[in-house]
Amino acid sequence: MTYFNEKRMKKKLKELAQWVDGTVIGDGEVEISGVSAIDEAQAGEITFIANPKYLPKLNETRASAVIVSKAVTRGEKPLLSVSHPYLAFAKILAFFSQKPYQPKGIDSNAWISPTASLGKDLTLYPFVYIGDHCSIGDRVTLYPGVCIGDGSSVGEDSILYPNVSVYSGTTIGKRVILHSGVVVGSDGFGYVKEGKKNVKIPQVGGVEIEDDVEIGSNTTIDRATLGKTIIRRGVKIDNLAQVAHNVIIGEDSIIVAQVGISGSTKIGSNVTLAGQVGMVGHIEIGDNVMVGAQSGVGHDLPANQVFTGSPAIPHREWLRSVTVFPKLPEMRRTLIEIEKRLKKIEETLSSSEKEK
Amino acid sequence: MTYFNEKRMKKKLKELAQWVDGTVIGDGEVEISGVSAIDEAQAGEITFIANPKYLPKLNETRASAVIVSKAVTRGEKPLLSVSHPYLAFAKILAFFSQKPYQPKGIDSNAWISPTASLGKDLTLYPFVYIGDHCSIGDRVTLYPGVCIGDGSSVGEDSILYPNVSVYSGTTIGKRVILHSGVVVGSDGFGYVKEGKKNVKIPQVGGVEIEDDVEIGSNTTIDRATLGKTIIRRGVKIDNLAQVAHNVIIGEDSIIVAQVGISGSTKIGSNVTLAGQVGMVGHIEIGDNVMVGAQSGVGHDLPANQVFTGSPAIPHREWLRSVTVFPKLPEMRRTLIEIEKRLKKIEETLSSSEKEK
Amino acid sequence: MTYFNEKRMKKKLKELAQWVDGTVIGDGEVEISGVSAIDEAQAGEITFIANPKYLPKLNETRASAVIVSKAVTRGEKPLLSVSHPYLAFAKILAFFSQKPYQPKGIDSNAWISPTASLGKDLTLYPFVYIGDHCSIGDRVTLYPGVCIGDGSSVGEDSILYPNVSVYSGTTIGKRVILHSGVVVGSDGFGYVKEGKKNVKIPQVGGVEIEDDVEIGSNTTIDRATLGKTIIRRGVKIDNLAQVAHNVIIGEDSIIVAQVGISGSTKIGSNVTLAGQVGMVGHIEIGDNVMVGAQSGVGHDLPANQVFTGSPAIPHREWLRSVTVFPKLPEMRRTLIEIEKRLKKIEETLSSSEKEK
Repeated sequence: MTYFNEKRMKKKLKELAQWVDGTVIGDGEVEISGVSAIDEAQAGEITFIANPKYLPKLNETRASAVIVSKAVTRGEKPLLSVSHPYLAFAKILAFFSQKPYQPKGIDSNAWISPTASLGKDLTLYPFVYIGDHCSIGDRVTLYPGVCIGDGSSVGEDSILYPNVSVYSGTTIGKRVILHSGVVVGSDGFGYVKEGKKNVKIPQVGGVEIEDDVEIGSNTTIDRATLGKTIIRRGVKIDNLAQVAHNVIIGEDSIIVAQVGISGSTKIGSNVTLAGQVGMVGHIEIGDNVMVGAQSGVGHDLPANQVFTGSPAIPHREWLRSVTVFPKLPEMRRTLIEIEKRLKKIEETLSSSEKEK
Repeated sequence: MTYFNEKRMKKKLKELAQWVDGTVIGDGEVEISGVSAIDEAQAGEITFIANPKYLPKLNETRASAVIVSKAVTRGEKPLLSVSHPYLAFAKILAFFSQKPYQPKGIDSNAWISPTASLGKDLTLYPFVYIGDHCSIGDRVTLYPGVCIGDGSSVGEDSILYPNVSVYSGTTIGKRVILHSGVVVGSDGFGYVKEGKKNVKIPQVGGVEIEDDVEIGSNTTIDRATLGKTIIRRGVKIDNLAQVAHNVIIGEDSIIVAQVGISGSTKIGSNVTLAGQVGMVGHIEIGDNVMVGAQSGVGHDLPANQVFTGSPAIPHREWLRSVTVFPKLPEMRRTLIEIEKRLKKIEETLSSSEKEK
Repeated sequence: MTYFNEKRMKKKLKELAQWVDGTVIGDGEVEISGVSAIDEAQAGEITFIANPKYLPKLNETRASAVIVSKAVTRGEKPLLSVSHPYLAFAKILAFFSQKPYQPKGIDSNAWISPTASLGKDLTLYPFVYIGDHCSIGDRVTLYPGVCIGDGSSVGEDSILYPNVSVYSGTTIGKRVILHSGVVVGSDGFGYVKEGKKNVKIPQVGGVEIEDDVEIGSNTTIDRATLGKTIIRRGVKIDNLAQVAHNVIIGEDSIIVAQVGISGSTKIGSNVTLAGQVGMVGHIEIGDNVMVGAQSGVGHDLPANQVFTGSPAIPHREWLRSVTVFPKLPEMRRTLIEIEKRLKKIEETLSSSEKEK
């Protein structure tokens, strides 16, 4: 499938080059009307090579132009040379694909509390529920099955996809995107044992999701016990992640699918947690930290470093150790053999000692 | 709980034997009216032993007949001897439990776009939403809270359970089953850093789910960036799995609960990924591969082999290494001790050398 | 954010002490009107120190009183000394935060089968669906988008948050809390291969959730193949966990987020499974077992012990082995060096032997 903008808008390659701050190698007059992957691109489209392993396809693609890094200086097709091809691709794709927002209005099958405060130019689909004293900003889109609990607010230009559940007392910023099945504000998992019985700790705090956050399908964000769970500006969370009560995730951090973050843990800004990472509660992760997939983090991690493993250790150490892991049986055999040889030597020495 | 068909249909054991291509050992005239687990079965029911560890229960069950493998040649009860007891059980259970489809019609509380194309004999529950230009095949069942985005299609005889969310531009085949909370077509997790800021890569591709696919509760399937995410014919996915953008899963593969597959990875046909497996993006997994639970796969895997571990290695190697893992502290102590012994020997030799 | 009860009820510290069976150190007449975390507490509030690492804050907090363990015998503020500070905090927080239930009635946009049996004092929100022959107990709250399948029952005082899906034939006890997106009763993941094709095993069993169970957002509980999946009294399950067909979880057990339990496994009572644990099917976990985060359990586990690792081993052994793991490369180098030294010694001995 190829993406075209509906009106088949065309742009000259040299115009796109201006848009992404790149330079044309070859014919800048060629007209581009869409963006496509390298194997599927057709004449009239632009494609990109971000990963050098696809360079052999440079002259095979049917695309009319190719976005390349500055390392590529010539090709049979017109090239758009940029310092960051994937970023240029993203921008050109956005250019061709973005449509201006058009409000669809408020469907008569949406249920809206008379005490809710509604902005203008909304798109509220059937079977949307908006509780008492909610505040919905301008140009917000709520798809079918979205439920906004009492006293919550959704900032302007935000989009909540079908069947998103927002509990009461939640604050959602501007330009936030919540994908289907996201749950925001459910009770934190807090119990205390009285004998064997689990006594529930009331979860009376809230959740604040700042501007420009995007949260993937079926991810869950629990409300705080006291205080707030906070997802800071620009954070992007993938599908099926778990963010427990009182967690704070710093600006621009990336949380990949199926990550689990336990209660009260603080994630710095610009952190990347790869898929299926698990974090215990009450720890702090420094800014710019990266944690490898499936890692388990049980302690604070200092800023600006890469960690992997369960339990997580510095990534390079982990790499060296996992390389040895498959050699463990051999190492064990060697150890046993060495002990035999040692014993033999010791016996030899002992008997020669006696000989003296 | 025992499963009976509602009309209490009865079949003679010899008739069931014909149905599953087995042979009766003992009285083939005994009448069977239901299927039950070995501990709960009552007179009039058939049960099964698929796992030899339950063989001691063969003569204890109250069932009137037992499905067994060909290794079992006699028992106190009539036996139904087959080459694959669990398969025979599945077929006999289906025989007793399956009811013919009866359409319930279109509830007046379903919201259906006037531009949608609807097949015949539908079952559309209240609070179903069907967007513009959708196509819904004959005998489709959509439970309450199902949302079908604009331009999507659902093939005949498919069943979408409550609160399934299908984004726009999704193709769903025939006889597909999507369990509650499944999300199909949400945006792939694609960003590119511009400084620290995460720039969203528009996700303008689609998702295609082929015939006879079943997807478990709250599993998420992202749409492609460009092109399509594809789930091929006969694939079965368990609950809470994550399938990222541009992933392709080959025919008849089995994806167990909580597996995560990163973007653009291609899974072959007849592959089995056990629970909680994680896969990085842009790799290829050969046909008939099996990957053990909780494994982490970072590279291509060749066909027809079994892998386990994080990072995944051939299963037998992994088995040998994990057996050594608990012996690491002992190995380390041995190493230290060996070094002392060695040093002592070296000193002995060195002094005896000097003596000379 | 601070939690206050709406009416700003005030209690003297000595009255709270009676309520939680504690003793006052200092002025018992001080009036308390709310509960807050130690950093955010204001005058008029009580806070708590459950973790000794926060003891330095004892005299810094602005709270008017502090709940402490018996190890703390003095402070600048009035203290509430108890044997279990976190439990006392939970009870005092409940005291200030709990409001009596007030039924909101049945919204006209809820869809209720005429054959359903409804208790009194219900709160049924818009877009709730209740199928044929369901039974809903007194004072049940069903939020928008909740779907109760045919023949299911929900016990009195239970709360089902938005977009919960309950399949047909499910039994839910009293005072049960199901958070948003929970799915109960979806088909178990059961197939049997006939050649490469996956033949579905009909899932005709049910699910029973006993009293006082709480289940976190987007967790999935599959119905049994035959018989029942059972969640026993007092079990607490966190978000995004997977409970497969025919699993039984014993009373008061704690299942943390993203745990996956495979088919037919039996979990004892008062068990704790930490986050992201995976369990194979058909095993038994003894009472009071604790399993560390991210562990993979492939065998029965005896009662009253702690296990960690993938595969799981006794926790202390695991701790010792993971400490050695980062030293593997060094151990391997040592082994190679030892072999060289050994060889040299053996050659020395061999040549001195020849000299003789």
